[in-house]
Amino acid sequence: MTSDEAMWAGVVPDASRRLLIAAVDSFAELGYHGTSTRQIAAGAGMSAGALYVHYRTKADLLYRIAELVHESVLAALRDALADVHGPTARVRALMYAFACWHARHHRAARVIQNELGALEAGPARTIAGMRRRVRAVLHEEIQAGVAAGVFDVADVAGTGRALASLAIDVCRWYRPEGAASPEEIGALYAHLAVRMLRPGRDG
Amino acid sequence: MTSDEAMWAGVVPDASRRLLIAAVDSFAELGYHGTSTRQIAAGAGMSAGALYVHYRTKADLLYRIAELVHESVLAALRDALADVHGPTARVRALMYAFACWHARHHRAARVIQNELGALEAGPARTIAGMRRRVRAVLHEEIQAGVAAGVFDVADVAGTGRALASLAIDVCRWYRPEGAASPEEIGALYAHLAVRMLRPGRDG
Repeated sequence: MTSDEAMWAGVVPDASRRLLIAAVDSFAELGYHGTSTRQIAAGAGMSAGALYVHYRTKADLLYRIAELVHESVLAALRDALADVHGPTARVRALMYAFACWHARHHRAARVIQNELGALEAGPARTIAGMRRRVRAVLHEEIQAGVAAGVFDVADVAGTGRALASLAIDVCRWYRPEGAASPEEIGALYAHLAVRMLRPGRDG
Repeated sequence: MTSDEAMWAGVVPDASRRLLIAAVDSFAELGYHGTSTRQIAAGAGMSAGALYVHYRTKADLLYRIAELVHESVLAALRDALADVHGPTARVRALMYAFACWHARHHRAARVIQNELGALEAGPARTIAGMRRRVRAVLHEEIQAGVAAGVFDVADVAGTGRALASLAIDVCRWYRPEGAASPEEIGALYAHLAVRMLRPGRDG
């Protein structure tokens, strides 16, 4: 089981799950607009008619994938903070988990980053809300560190955005055959994040 | 003239240039695989037959766009370093230019980041070479700062990759109507880059 498959493990029935996995495969290869529901169904070994039992439209599939991806990120960040105390340790744990997640789930994450614009208005609002929650987790930890006098950050919003961006972009360039493992990338990014937040000679 | 149009200004004849601009528009909206040459030609107010006078295939258009985009980035980085001395000032100038460029040219940059996988083997090698040169510019400046004892960097390759990634990802999230201007993003990222490289309390 690949790590992406682990993300879909809770989806039932089995046919719904296979269609999600086939959709990620097709979107990754041909883009959302370049993929037909017929291709997705074929990828799952099903007929186009059988697909519509589980998903009304191709847009429905994209929305469900986006929802699962963002639920998974939020859970990873929440888990990373459990029982971790102190601003530096918490940002370190967050950034490690955030970057690691985007290496491990680079394929599904990339599809979603590339195709967010194809979501319909209602779903787009829901996903935008989930993305705001992700950014808020980082923002709150930076803010807490500033309030505690541990971090020195002139632009909390911009710096939080930069940290999120750095972790998210791992899904664009990460390759499993590359030099660094998800854990090594996570450790480096945790280190760089703390450097960005704590005053140095440049602070 | 938008900043993207400025990037194509040297392309002649006029019809070739209009086709490039129309291709970026279509790829941005529908993805590379979701776009037909007929749509691109129509976007430029031309017939599909007239398109083939200028570009053999849709893949040719993508390649030409990727080439112009990467030539523009490399020129921006080269210009940023002219007459700037000292590792800190040079990294600051580089990061400012790199992030600014990706905000100003976010649309064309996004198309290229999303669609690099669609390039054919030969063109993909050429573009990969240009991308290595972009990363090498950053890498060399970090290396020089370490050699001069100004920077404290355990993982030069990984840190250089992170700085490039941070600047490139601006094209994904930047919106002209957003709170920060390209210049403000450039200034923040120059500051964050120097923080990552110079030893602080965490160093």
